[in-house]
Amino acid sequence: MQPFESFAEFATLADRLPAADEAIRAEAQARQDSLTKPQGSLGRLEELALHWAAWRGTVRPEIKKAQGIVFAGNHGICVHGVAPFPQEVTVQMVANFEAGGAGINQLCRAAGAELKVVKLDLDRPTQDFTTAPAMTEAETIAALNVGFASVDTDADALIIGEMGVGNSTIAAALAAAVFGGPAVDWVGPGTGSDAEGIKRKIAVVDKGLALHSGLGGMETLAALGGREQAAMCGAILGARAARIPVILDGFICTSAAGTLYKVDPRLLDHCVVGHSSAEPGHRLMLEAMGKRALMQMDMRLGEGTGAALALGVVRAALECHNGMATFAEAGVSEG
Amino acid sequence: MQPFESFAEFATLADRLPAADEAIRAEAQARQDSLTKPQGSLGRLEELALHWAAWRGTVRPEIKKAQGIVFAGNHGICVHGVAPFPQEVTVQMVANFEAGGAGINQLCRAAGAELKVVKLDLDRPTQDFTTAPAMTEAETIAALNVGFASVDTDADALIIGEMGVGNSTIAAALAAAVFGGPAVDWVGPGTGSDAEGIKRKIAVVDKGLALHSGLGGMETLAALGGREQAAMCGAILGARAARIPVILDGFICTSAAGTLYKVDPRLLDHCVVGHSSAEPGHRLMLEAMGKRALMQMDMRLGEGTGAALALGVVRAALECHNGMATFAEAGVSEG
Repeated sequence: MQPFESFAEFATLADRLPAADEAIRAEAQARQDSLTKPQGSLGRLEELALHWAAWRGTVRPEIKKAQGIVFAGNHGICVHGVAPFPQEVTVQMVANFEAGGAGINQLCRAAGAELKVVKLDLDRPTQDFTTAPAMTEAETIAALNVGFASVDTDADALIIGEMGVGNSTIAAALAAAVFGGPAVDWVGPGTGSDAEGIKRKIAVVDKGLALHSGLGGMETLAALGGREQAAMCGAILGARAARIPVILDGFICTSAAGTLYKVDPRLLDHCVVGHSSAEPGHRLMLEAMGKRALMQMDMRLGEGTGAALALGVVRAALECHNGMATFAEAGVSEG
Repeated sequence: MQPFESFAEFATLADRLPAADEAIRAEAQARQDSLTKPQGSLGRLEELALHWAAWRGTVRPEIKKAQGIVFAGNHGICVHGVAPFPQEVTVQMVANFEAGGAGINQLCRAAGAELKVVKLDLDRPTQDFTTAPAMTEAETIAALNVGFASVDTDADALIIGEMGVGNSTIAAALAAAVFGGPAVDWVGPGTGSDAEGIKRKIAVVDKGLALHSGLGGMETLAALGGREQAAMCGAILGARAARIPVILDGFICTSAAGTLYKVDPRLLDHCVVGHSSAEPGHRLMLEAMGKRALMQMDMRLGEGTGAALALGVVRAALECHNGMATFAEAGVSEG
């Protein structure tokens, strides 16, 4: 399927990608109902087991290998002072990821995921979207292809995250363009903007929305997004092609995924949302997409940290699904 | 401190037990604020790290050993048909725990906790609380002491759970007696009662409440509780004596803990609540106690499963707290 060559291909993409195996899901449900517990009493752990079964195409799926990918990019809109950290922090944090010192390193280790860090032209920020599209179609396609190719097709689960100073402003712009509403509905403090900073972010997003309106999903991604956003979309699709379920992270990751949702909601059917971020717009976005986050820990760090935390829950769900005895095996009365 | 000899000792217990070390908590907070992330951006993971630091008395606490204990008991009120499963299921499920086939076995393994199963006179159910106190003071004290002595004082975290056919009715009775309100506010479907079954549960609880009213915390535990409830209280206190933070489970576990809360709310200061159960009364109880659950996965299995799942989150919190680089170490600008 890859590499992508143009946005035109995306219109029929959902029809060409693998779908969940509903027969396997039904078999996995039958197994859940035979395990030594009241039916349904493991709640969302049962849902997760069925999701992995249906997408991996096996009644008792295992996570032998899990991959985490952090995509990093820089943004032209930083000239407007939208972020409380200087832009060189993107490069510094990438070095921190590579040295193992960031939050995502600890959470990937804790959840048993291999972490890959993908830098996207950090010395070449995107265009300032208040004056031009952030990226050309060719630049966007290139980043999509980098993301697609980053996926380890031997993995049984993929968690994705990002780093990019200024990208909570990018996320608010994408969310507003995809789901509607003015900037003020979607802009939040991000990594820690004060009231003045939030005002600046709102003004920048409103200006971008006025300049780039009425676009399709991929055109929105190009106009208002960034390279790490496009790469996350590519990774989501790379995982889908290999039937690997994806755990999305918070506000920034989900807003990137939202551009795929705008193309066709089915493009996210293999994705679950790891956590509901403290960034206020995230909850709105999840409601609009009909997705319910697995955890709510008041986190707002990005990097994939919420997704990595949720991977532990998925592992626990599969341990129950695969390891529990049935009523018959254990000689327990079914009542 | 142990063994307990009478309920009279409980009045001064909170003053005689260890408290959190607030100086250590402040040092742990300072460490959190120096790590390479926006301050506060790990949300409740930061709270958990501080909680473990303050209770373990060390700025960088580790969970080298975690213990899970499931307490099992049988209940006289089962003569009223309050449970959809026959009472022999308690013994059958204990055998399942011992053979490794239950939900709690998988979740303890996934979270790296050693599981202990403690049977409390399963062939000798408590009295039917609609006609007499469920237990004498001596029986209650005996079960409290079993629970206290079950705690591995080398552990760095304790998760507790239970098994006992009929004990969602016991839990509703304890919750109503401790937090007020009629049975209908606290009775739910438990492991799967239908509308008729719920009606029977409400009638039984109302009868128990009418017979045993105006009692203190421990007297309520004796009158309306069961041996596994008393043992859970004992384990909570055994952990406190050893400065081991406890992760409470759902409706049944928390209602037992509620009797300690009635004695003195400080007795639960070292406890966090692992999850918010699908059993409707659990949320009410947590609001009444001012505790916020860590997870909400629509689980309603008991056994300690929600607590075990949350242990993974605590481990992740401590990995971040101990393993992340500081801004100075990583050479990242603080903005």
